[in-house]
Amino acid sequence: MAADLPFSPAAEPLTVMGAGLVGSLLSLYLARRGHAVQVFERRADPRRAGFQEGRSINLALSDRGWHALSGVGVANDIRQVGIAMTGRVMHDVQGNLTRQPYGREGQAIYSVNRGHLNRRLLDLAEAQTGVSLHFGQQCLGIDLKKQQLHLRDTTTQAEHDVPYRRLFGTDGAFSAVRAALQRQERFDYSQDYLEYGYKELTIEAGPGGAWQLEKNALHIWPRGQYLMIALPNLDGSFNCTLFFPYEGPESFAALQTPADVTAFFTRVFPDATPLMPALEKEFFEHPTGSLVTIRCFPWKYDDDVLLLGDAAHAIVPFYGQGMNAGFEDCSVLNELLDQHGDADWATIFAEFQQQRKPNNDAMADLAVYNFVEMRDRVADPRFLLQKKIEAKIAAQYPGRWTPLYSQVTFSHTPYAEAWAAGQRQDAIMARLMPHIASETDYDQPDVQALVQQEMVERT
Amino acid sequence: MAADLPFSPAAEPLTVMGAGLVGSLLSLYLARRGHAVQVFERRADPRRAGFQEGRSINLALSDRGWHALSGVGVANDIRQVGIAMTGRVMHDVQGNLTRQPYGREGQAIYSVNRGHLNRRLLDLAEAQTGVSLHFGQQCLGIDLKKQQLHLRDTTTQAEHDVPYRRLFGTDGAFSAVRAALQRQERFDYSQDYLEYGYKELTIEAGPGGAWQLEKNALHIWPRGQYLMIALPNLDGSFNCTLFFPYEGPESFAALQTPADVTAFFTRVFPDATPLMPALEKEFFEHPTGSLVTIRCFPWKYDDDVLLLGDAAHAIVPFYGQGMNAGFEDCSVLNELLDQHGDADWATIFAEFQQQRKPNNDAMADLAVYNFVEMRDRVADPRFLLQKKIEAKIAAQYPGRWTPLYSQVTFSHTPYAEAWAAGQRQDAIMARLMPHIASETDYDQPDVQALVQQEMVERT
Repeated sequence: MAADLPFSPAAEPLTVMGAGLVGSLLSLYLARRGHAVQVFERRADPRRAGFQEGRSINLALSDRGWHALSGVGVANDIRQVGIAMTGRVMHDVQGNLTRQPYGREGQAIYSVNRGHLNRRLLDLAEAQTGVSLHFGQQCLGIDLKKQQLHLRDTTTQAEHDVPYRRLFGTDGAFSAVRAALQRQERFDYSQDYLEYGYKELTIEAGPGGAWQLEKNALHIWPRGQYLMIALPNLDGSFNCTLFFPYEGPESFAALQTPADVTAFFTRVFPDATPLMPALEKEFFEHPTGSLVTIRCFPWKYDDDVLLLGDAAHAIVPFYGQGMNAGFEDCSVLNELLDQHGDADWATIFAEFQQQRKPNNDAMADLAVYNFVEMRDRVADPRFLLQKKIEAKIAAQYPGRWTPLYSQVTFSHTPYAEAWAAGQRQDAIMARLMPHIASETDYDQPDVQALVQQEMVERT
Repeated sequence: MAADLPFSPAAEPLTVMGAGLVGSLLSLYLARRGHAVQVFERRADPRRAGFQEGRSINLALSDRGWHALSGVGVANDIRQVGIAMTGRVMHDVQGNLTRQPYGREGQAIYSVNRGHLNRRLLDLAEAQTGVSLHFGQQCLGIDLKKQQLHLRDTTTQAEHDVPYRRLFGTDGAFSAVRAALQRQERFDYSQDYLEYGYKELTIEAGPGGAWQLEKNALHIWPRGQYLMIALPNLDGSFNCTLFFPYEGPESFAALQTPADVTAFFTRVFPDATPLMPALEKEFFEHPTGSLVTIRCFPWKYDDDVLLLGDAAHAIVPFYGQGMNAGFEDCSVLNELLDQHGDADWATIFAEFQQQRKPNNDAMADLAVYNFVEMRDRVADPRFLLQKKIEAKIAAQYPGRWTPLYSQVTFSHTPYAEAWAAGQRQDAIMARLMPHIASETDYDQPDVQALVQQEMVERT
């Protein structure tokens, strides 16, 4: 078997720093190709009893993520424990609901439990020949010249050095691997915080584990300068996230007491608040998370080190694409290995960053763009009408018009191309909408003529 | 005397980290106000024999810098050892010269020796009651909660902690004080490198210390994708700086041998090369410097810590404003102390960053903008004609039109306002220039009518 491999795994083991979602999937990809893969993770093994889950309980998996999971044969397994969300349901201040489908009939994004997904990927990685997992290993520093990790065992506190030949940094937004690259000359880097924090809260399950809101939807309470969302869990509960300014008249700073919180929630989220009996407790016990966009370049150091996932490009969560983008990094790297073989790492690392950097930059912009859409525009009937008209155009001109959201979420079109096409389509919609007062206007001959003219000019 | 002060210096000594140009000037400002000021500097005392000068030998001082130096009464003293540069002299590939004045008659920027200026400011600071200077003190870390510096004495290697109440970070582009702030949540930060490095070289003095190029000018060899500049020194030499791509057909990477260097310089800088007998030696012995723009925010931590100068806003050198911007930070802080008194540091720090951040952001953009102007546009006769026409407009409409360069260099107009006005004026010039083929065309009635119309619309 080993004789069939184009290289000797023993001669060149691969090292992955970080066994979160992207690190565990990457390890699986690399080991399936026949590589020996050593994986180090700062935290304890999340599959052991007593493990404390960190941030965001559920995530939205979409096509790019599914594609990457399919590549290691785990997609069907995960789909079993995901909940399809076929659209957004907007809740106004009176509790009225408006529904907007995410895509065509049958298209959906999936609410998936982060912990479950991570544990499943770790199980698969551990069962895979060639993978060795090492938990509780904090990276204190990296000697890039000596190709050596300096680790601390968080159980024994003992420090030790581990040599590497190829190091993959999948250790997240606050990556220790990136920190080592950042100390090199000519390393571009930025971290940009939104003036918003987030707080995770819970809508409880109803009697018998029933969902108290529509199950197959992502719920949004858009309030202009802030918003709350909710994603369904399998047990009938919803995980809510409030995205809220740090300062100002309606802000974290302004809600100081349990009574403040309840009064505020009752006023602005009247339909949700009765479903959140733990609100006061959770609001003060759960940490306030920050929202950062991290960009850097280069993502590689010679042919020794490569950054992937949040370590290379952390984004804000408003497009539900952070994990999907990191998973797509894994499938793209796998394609490059198919293309160039498993030995020419210099070419692979160079092509990886050249291909992925503009796409993940575009995704970072898209994520901030969608923040404004979710907190503000989805509450505007004109905006929702525009989305309906756009769906009609897409249906009338199949293959020639794909709404931006669909390109990002339900296609593998590179993010940068999707963003550029989306901006062109937005410009067309801006010219079209003044002629349209209602959904039925779309069928008016003059509107149809306009649409046709725009489509011709586009070609 | 002490009884007249509105505060007790003993109760609240001030701490300055970094005794470079901005740190030494700031210390002088603060001590002149009656504060006790403790200054720590990583390097050895530059006034001691054997001190190794670091980067860039000479700097261009302009009005903002002079204003700040005047505030502590040192401007006249420095002007004695500065060399007025009244314009740019462009050298083409044939060695032909073109001159472009910087401003009106009598306006100039000044070539000043960095080391001399720093030593003079340190002498003044040391002589000032209340200032204590501590050299060879490297900041290893800062405990922001405990308000404590962790320093290493670079002579004895002994580490010690020093408490502070107000800490001013003037420790440059790679600031240790900023690094401590950066570890806080919600600290925005970016470092952006140009794909260009710089190399310092020397045009020697002629016989008897004569200047071999025009003394009172900044010399530029614009070559499209790269450039060299030269500033005069008092000893008859010029300090040259080559700004050059790291990679590519004409780049640092492409010049590997002394013969490569001489052949390249002889071809592209034919008039300068014979005046640079140490070229080959210097090219390989002098380090290649990198060019970074650093932005961050906030610049303060509570009412405890404030960043100024390059620590808050390092820029590329192409507008000659890095030091001037840092000096202006000092005079602006001094004005805020005049306005709010010497005790309300919370207000002063908050107003300082609110006022200076947009201006130094604009200056960072201007510096990159001027890179393109210096390496490329100044070689274009149409561009030089435009500058002449602009000077005519400025002369015809005094007080209503000030060229961008003059606003940045010869005024105290906030940088952001200067940049905005410059962009408006650029748009007008773009409409005007198609009607102008030569300098004399400016007096044509139709052109005069156009100019007048633009000026009316501007009002």
